[in-house]
Amino acid sequence: MSKKFQVVGIGNSIVDVLAHCEDAFLSDNGVEKGIMQLIDTARAAELYGKMGPSLEISGGSAANTIAGLAAMGARTAYVGKVKADQLGDIFAHDIQAQGAVYEVPRAPAEAVDETGRCMVLVTPDAERSMNTYLGVSEHLGPDDIDVAMMADADWIYLEGYRFDGAQSHAAFAKAIKACKGTGGKVALTLSDPFCVERHRDAFRTMIRDHVDLLFCNEHEMQAMYQSTSLESCLKIAAEESEIVACTIGARGALIIRGAETFHAPAAATTVVDVTGAGDIFAAGFMHGLVNDKDMLTCGRMGCVAASEIISHIGARPEADLQELFRAAGL
Amino acid sequence: MSKKFQVVGIGNSIVDVLAHCEDAFLSDNGVEKGIMQLIDTARAAELYGKMGPSLEISGGSAANTIAGLAAMGARTAYVGKVKADQLGDIFAHDIQAQGAVYEVPRAPAEAVDETGRCMVLVTPDAERSMNTYLGVSEHLGPDDIDVAMMADADWIYLEGYRFDGAQSHAAFAKAIKACKGTGGKVALTLSDPFCVERHRDAFRTMIRDHVDLLFCNEHEMQAMYQSTSLESCLKIAAEESEIVACTIGARGALIIRGAETFHAPAAATTVVDVTGAGDIFAAGFMHGLVNDKDMLTCGRMGCVAASEIISHIGARPEADLQELFRAAGL
Repeated sequence: MSKKFQVVGIGNSIVDVLAHCEDAFLSDNGVEKGIMQLIDTARAAELYGKMGPSLEISGGSAANTIAGLAAMGARTAYVGKVKADQLGDIFAHDIQAQGAVYEVPRAPAEAVDETGRCMVLVTPDAERSMNTYLGVSEHLGPDDIDVAMMADADWIYLEGYRFDGAQSHAAFAKAIKACKGTGGKVALTLSDPFCVERHRDAFRTMIRDHVDLLFCNEHEMQAMYQSTSLESCLKIAAEESEIVACTIGARGALIIRGAETFHAPAAATTVVDVTGAGDIFAAGFMHGLVNDKDMLTCGRMGCVAASEIISHIGARPEADLQELFRAAGL
Repeated sequence: MSKKFQVVGIGNSIVDVLAHCEDAFLSDNGVEKGIMQLIDTARAAELYGKMGPSLEISGGSAANTIAGLAAMGARTAYVGKVKADQLGDIFAHDIQAQGAVYEVPRAPAEAVDETGRCMVLVTPDAERSMNTYLGVSEHLGPDDIDVAMMADADWIYLEGYRFDGAQSHAAFAKAIKACKGTGGKVALTLSDPFCVERHRDAFRTMIRDHVDLLFCNEHEMQAMYQSTSLESCLKIAAEESEIVACTIGARGALIIRGAETFHAPAAATTVVDVTGAGDIFAAGFMHGLVNDKDMLTCGRMGCVAASEIISHIGARPEADLQELFRAAGL
């Protein structure tokens, strides 16, 4: 009997504040290029005051993946915290409008922290540098985990960025126990090389003990297993997780299952903004997986979905992804 | 001696909530295609609940014009009301980041109305249907008009949509008196044919008594002078306002000054979203005007700017407009 949800994602609920800037703006303002930095309220206000006109669009890594999966027609739910404020309304509207179930109670209007946001600075080379104020998103804890929902999921998808939250590990443990207890499986994304540096041991333990599908890129893989040889890192990872799906930038993705390695090439496109490329790759891959596709097809679906996301501003799909899969013969 | 401001705009302060939809969504939900409808809080919540995932970007007609002028390098200020809420922060940030002076006090957090927003539904033909909840924007009154600022402006630019606000006329009268008292001039945009229907007499009186430069499109012109003959409408308008700049869709714009008529052709582009085309046309035209360009050059600058706006989602420029003017030999 099939479960109610094919994929339930748990992550930081973030509204992206996207602006174009020159490389000089990053260096002048101490922004590290190409990675995610956590910032506090004061730094958020300072940076926002200096940056150019922007647009706001719902983001969050696991939320992007779940929105993408919902857009592809999968049965999904999302778990992450927002406040009862205007940005919280926007976040909730957008993920529900995409078709995902999202029922986590909002932090009340009188809470000090606001809905989380991420200032995404897109340089002319389409690279994005992210500055995240987590806000109430940071406080997601075990009480926010609906055990019945986790038990009714084929897969839960855990966002690595959540390793920064104090109550995250207890929340993840509760979700994993409920999901695995009914035969469900666990996917994890490493999210960011610096996040991996901050929490390497906790990541390693979770991968070894619980993870069936590991998403990463080459930089995260190298940070995780502390070697410059991607091949040897992937070999270790593949011994610890049943499937490893590693994006390798413009070359596409490598999928490793046991002794087998598959290379899914990137789909051609004009790159405008790489924000969310990894998130939607994961969505495309899991869409293939829950529809019983072979590993290479799953990888190719991830790459086709990623090519759509990077061709425009914002990390949520604008085109009909199922149509793109059909056009690619998938 | 030159004044501090070249153009000061007065308008409704709006954050646009942009989503793609099919034509069937409009008819199923009673949305009139291609025009602006005012909606109340309940209707705003209903429509937002039904519409798809969206993105938020600062809008407002006169605000778009002023942001565009600031992006072109003009000395500008904007007058319009927002609340001390998250959308108000976004609106204020974006227009200030573009280089315009924006100093109007916010409505306090405890006010019932929120910062205004407009749900913009973009159909596959790139047409936009607008549903506006005015919020605190509606309450801009004479107390919000800084007489010294108006006296220090070469031009004030008045948004026709503001004719719907109860205190708008007193606010406009105060601004006009201060501006004209120091030799300044008055530009007005008719904004929307249905807005013209609602306030035809008031528009007519203002044009006759105060307006030096009238912006409109063909539909607004026909609603204003109640004739299907654009030529005869423009003839009347040109007797009442020194300059009339009338956009005519894909054919560009007609500029009438006294007995002279100039045709500025549209600049070629791929149309993605026509939101803000008229607003940025006005910005380009006035940029020419404050830089002492001839009428045809002013019109062509308007058309070049409009071609940039309609080539992407959102009503604020993404490309360097001065570069586009240079490329067009202007």
